[in-house]
Amino acid sequence: MATYKVPVISGDGIGPEVIAEGKKVIEAAGEVYGFNVDWIHMPFGADHYVATGETISEESLKELGRYRAIYLGSLGDERKVKAGILEKGVLLKMRFYYDQYINLRPVKLLDGVETPLKNKTSKDIDFMVVRENTEDFYVGLGGRVKKGAEKQELELKRDIYAVKFNLDIETDSDEIGYQIGVVSREGAKRIMEYSFDLARQRRKHLSSVDKANVMTECYGLWRDVFTETAKNYPDVQTDFNFVDAVTMWFVKNPEFFDVVVTPNMFGDIITDLGAMIQGGLGLAPGGNVNPKGTSMFEPMGGSAPKYKGLNKVNPIATIWAGALLLDHLGEKQAADAIVKAIEANLKQGKVRTYDLGGTAGTSDVGSDIARIVKVQG
Amino acid sequence: MATYKVPVISGDGIGPEVIAEGKKVIEAAGEVYGFNVDWIHMPFGADHYVATGETISEESLKELGRYRAIYLGSLGDERKVKAGILEKGVLLKMRFYYDQYINLRPVKLLDGVETPLKNKTSKDIDFMVVRENTEDFYVGLGGRVKKGAEKQELELKRDIYAVKFNLDIETDSDEIGYQIGVVSREGAKRIMEYSFDLARQRRKHLSSVDKANVMTECYGLWRDVFTETAKNYPDVQTDFNFVDAVTMWFVKNPEFFDVVVTPNMFGDIITDLGAMIQGGLGLAPGGNVNPKGTSMFEPMGGSAPKYKGLNKVNPIATIWAGALLLDHLGEKQAADAIVKAIEANLKQGKVRTYDLGGTAGTSDVGSDIARIVKVQG
Ligand SMILES: CC(C)[C@H](C(=O)O)[C@@H](O)C(=O)O
Ligand SMILES: CC(C)[C@H](C(=O)O)[C@@H](O)C(=O)O
Repeated sequence: MATYKVPVISGDGIGPEVIAEGKKVIEAAGEVYGFNVDWIHMPFGADHYVATGETISEESLKELGRYRAIYLGSLGDERKVKAGILEKGVLLKMRFYYDQYINLRPVKLLDGVETPLKNKTSKDIDFMVVRENTEDFYVGLGGRVKKGAEKQELELKRDIYAVKFNLDIETDSDEIGYQIGVVSREGAKRIMEYSFDLARQRRKHLSSVDKANVMTECYGLWRDVFTETAKNYPDVQTDFNFVDAVTMWFVKNPEFFDVVVTPNMFGDIITDLGAMIQGGLGLAPGGNVNPKGTSMFEPMGGSAPKYKGLNKVNPIATIWAGALLLDHLGEKQAADAIVKAIEANLKQGKVRTYDLGGTAGTSDVGSDIARIVKVQG
Repeated sequence: MATYKVPVISGDGIGPEVIAEGKKVIEAAGEVYGFNVDWIHMPFGADHYVATGETISEESLKELGRYRAIYLGSLGDERKVKAGILEKGVLLKMRFYYDQYINLRPVKLLDGVETPLKNKTSKDIDFMVVRENTEDFYVGLGGRVKKGAEKQELELKRDIYAVKFNLDIETDSDEIGYQIGVVSREGAKRIMEYSFDLARQRRKHLSSVDKANVMTECYGLWRDVFTETAKNYPDVQTDFNFVDAVTMWFVKNPEFFDVVVTPNMFGDIITDLGAMIQGGLGLAPGGNVNPKGTSMFEPMGGSAPKYKGLNKVNPIATIWAGALLLDHLGEKQAADAIVKAIEANLKQGKVRTYDLGGTAGTSDVGSDIARIVKVQG
């Protein structure tokens, strides 16, 4: 019997509650499909930061880097730690450190879930967003400069390339804040190839998102690489879309989309909109994938500290993320069974959390899905 | 009787058709409310560019800068001119040249219009987005650099400040495209003050949009200035919102919003989403405002070259933009009358273009609204 060692970062707020349900369901699937999971608990998050001053240490990063998949709850509690510190210090840190260049976001309206959109059903909302996850305006290069002149040195080191900006900045403004986004040919190429391959396994339609009419430099390169890569996939239908238009089509014509490939920042925005049209953050899982390294699976929702300990929030996003994790580990049957069990729970509609109009608790939903996994098996 | 001289750039695709209706309605309002308009036609757009190689000349910019308000149709025709050239060379050029730092976008669902959102009515969708219009990632600073080292000099000159970046870039990447965004204290301050003042005239609630947890430098400054400005407006209720969450709330809780102040790029995205929830681009006007200089009013929709000459598209966004223009010129009564006439046309629901399920032509709708303006008057 296979045994997987999976590090777990439950994190802040409702993180521990939803992760508990995710583990429950994965373990149920393990019983049916014949595998064990050893959970390796890690303490990172707001409390750990307050207690130790540490976000995540280089040592811990190395340690976690020995595993293929991390299960993550949610990070952040603005009552304890200023916005940005844990996001940049733990979440983005891991995405970059493990070079998880693929952010996978299934946008799928499951039967039994209501979308806020008129006249749209589960047949209309079923696409995959592939968000580039390591470049663009997320690289953390920038600074604030006051009247006068200043030199700044900014460096970006990636597995696939490095770039150094030596800046000499002169301004008569009281203060400016600047931010540099970077798109590389290597970085664009690998995400395009992943997306085209994925489109081939689906309905063979890939839509690219950019704003190349305004940010002509970084997204001009993005477009060039898309166009070049497309030549190797003549069987895949393609189109370019400005990000502003994409938000409109998600609402008006979600059925247009099959696979959507997007730069990091626009991806952040449109995947939240995607979560909303599939019924809300409580139903939206995400994967941060490095096919050859350490990946990480998480619900899209935040830590919602207000709800901590109330056994109220929806664990389905986390459970679904658990299915993505199992799929990544090669347990495809178990992964499919979990998604089916989620669908069955939603279709029955009896055991639901408040966001879906129900009165059940977080743990009730987890138990119900675990039960269905076993019954199905 | 007052006479206003108003430069008109009808532009490409359906631009001339919708502008014709806008002029028709403004002239009708002039008859009723006692003013004349002298239209000064300007040729800028795709055909002009193809014929002359000119986007808009410094001389023309100076000439147009003598007037208080420009009426703009739409620019761009990708069959004739590559994406980006006219957008950057004419539209953004004017926004920057005239320092139109306020982009005003009423998001208002008018009675008689269907929103794609379930359970939302005109009572729920009625807010104003104030998009900063001259900074952020729209400043056009960036470059593409191939393996090796390169020096680049980028300069930004604004009425309110200047900044010079001398860059020394070294990379081992095959090619990178980089883009620099800039937020200044002066630029943030004036848009915050405008927005707080506007909130005071409305429901006294101002929501700020940013992504300060990731792009900590430019949006950190944005947040600081918002917080400082808020101290002078203790009667206005405020909140910060990450842009990804904003797209969700526009769909789920649009009634939450009163005035929304947003950096340029996020503003581009969320105002298109706003247009969609108010019934589509055919109904969404925009103003590019410099309170002390030359402003510009335009429909949000593109030039839709495919529809050119078909007398099909909805002119309401353009007519509404005309009302914003009149309001800006001080003709508040006439402006209000036009908006009321638009509402009456939509409520009656008899003369509608195809996007609203009707069969009327562009010019029918313009004539109907002009007629109502006169009847009302
Ligand atoms: C928490 C935040 C840093 C993060 C992001 O912006 O990527 C989140 O919004 C996401 O989409 O995973
Ligand atoms: C045409 C384009 C350059 C423009 C923008 O990005 O600002 C448009 O989308 C808008 O919102 O006015």
